[in-house]
Amino acid sequence: MTATGQRTTVAAEKTTHGAAAAEPQGRVARRQRRNREALIHAATAVMGEKGIDAATMQEIAERADLGAGTIYNYFKSKDELAVAVLEELMVELALRIERVTFDDPAQVYAFGIHTVLATATTDGRWKQMLYRSEVIADALYRRMGPFAIRDLRNAVQAGRFFVADAELTWRLTAHAIVGAALAVTTGALPAGAREAAIAQLLCMTGIGAEAASALAALPLPPLPDMPAAAATPAHRRHARPAPTAAAQGE
Amino acid sequence: MTATGQRTTVAAEKTTHGAAAAEPQGRVARRQRRNREALIHAATAVMGEKGIDAATMQEIAERADLGAGTIYNYFKSKDELAVAVLEELMVELALRIERVTFDDPAQVYAFGIHTVLATATTDGRWKQMLYRSEVIADALYRRMGPFAIRDLRNAVQAGRFFVADAELTWRLTAHAIVGAALAVTTGALPAGAREAAIAQLLCMTGIGAEAASALAALPLPPLPDMPAAAATPAHRRHARPAPTAAAQGE
Repeated sequence: MTATGQRTTVAAEKTTHGAAAAEPQGRVARRQRRNREALIHAATAVMGEKGIDAATMQEIAERADLGAGTIYNYFKSKDELAVAVLEELMVELALRIERVTFDDPAQVYAFGIHTVLATATTDGRWKQMLYRSEVIADALYRRMGPFAIRDLRNAVQAGRFFVADAELTWRLTAHAIVGAALAVTTGALPAGAREAAIAQLLCMTGIGAEAASALAALPLPPLPDMPAAAATPAHRRHARPAPTAAAQGE
Repeated sequence: MTATGQRTTVAAEKTTHGAAAAEPQGRVARRQRRNREALIHAATAVMGEKGIDAATMQEIAERADLGAGTIYNYFKSKDELAVAVLEELMVELALRIERVTFDDPAQVYAFGIHTVLATATTDGRWKQMLYRSEVIADALYRRMGPFAIRDLRNAVQAGRFFVADAELTWRLTAHAIVGAALAVTTGALPAGAREAAIAQLLCMTGIGAEAASALAALPLPPLPDMPAAAATPAHRRHARPAPTAAAQGE
């Protein structure tokens, strides 16, 4: 039962399929892309330091070395920019999750669920956006979908999960994750209930309550750092998500 | 395996617990309550006829026989009024679902899931509010929770479901239902996938994929009408939801 061998990385698939499409169209397009990336990069930092509410568009533009007016050519509002930041963080998180290897492909998926819920309930940038459930669930579905759907399918192939439609499972799970994270951050769910929430989310893989609880209770390795190549914004390296139907919603 | 016998109705519990608290405080309080109910009643009708977007506060106030300015004493915005309408519709739907009897308590819950998803994807008033996922999921959790959580617990007692924390299950299921309904109404999920979505939602009861699919595929009786007593707004008869922790979130 070694999932690691058969597991193609989503990143590798993307490089092949997305190479032509990711080519810049010309000098203007290249500059626009650079500016957009610089703004997301700056916003990620400023919102990480001060929280989304306290971060101003002015400060983000300054940090990106761009005029304050320029920012609105790229993002209509701070809210829109915050969603772009979160999507970036989601891809980065998926790439970090992807670096852990387990013999059991069910554990790969469980580790992902655990990590996403832990991040959503502790990182201020996620926490402050949870109230926009439909936007965050949709971003989770699109950005982490290529990774999560692949992991679900690997576990199905290994006979560990019983999922008829992995995209549907991930779609509903993304919404349930946001619900669980909201419940934890608003205090509606006691902090100790996080493992129960993870077991509940793992039930959606069709394995039944007992197996889901056992899977949720397994000890977890630490989350790896980003690979060294991460100096390039993940956004750039992964301009095209994996060619699953999940990505077509963009 | 007869769940029907042991099944206490939520309505009956509520009458006992809520009697004192539901007593009006005086003439002003009685009038305010009447006005609020009249506005919700009028909004339910107008929004049902024209949709939420086309319904104006002016028209709703006129239908309730109140001044157009009065309406803002009760609801800050049309959006807030629409949420109140939806909460009302949720309680009414739960009361209609409650009138169906099955020998298998798992089927009681499955019928509820099926009916909620069908309503959310066909009734214009639900459909137009789905984009406010967190508000609608929270309303589902609070308003239908007393009924759904009771049904979950009955099925657990009968050995049909394997749910450790019925409130948690319902909380995450409410979010997943909104996700499924959004996917159907936006066309992201093909119409034929509704049964698959219901099976997916039933997986959250811990019964595993095969049992969930079988339960989702069972033939369904028609949804009963409201009981004759429904001439009184459901809101009034059920001012206090059942005394579960789900209700404490209000």
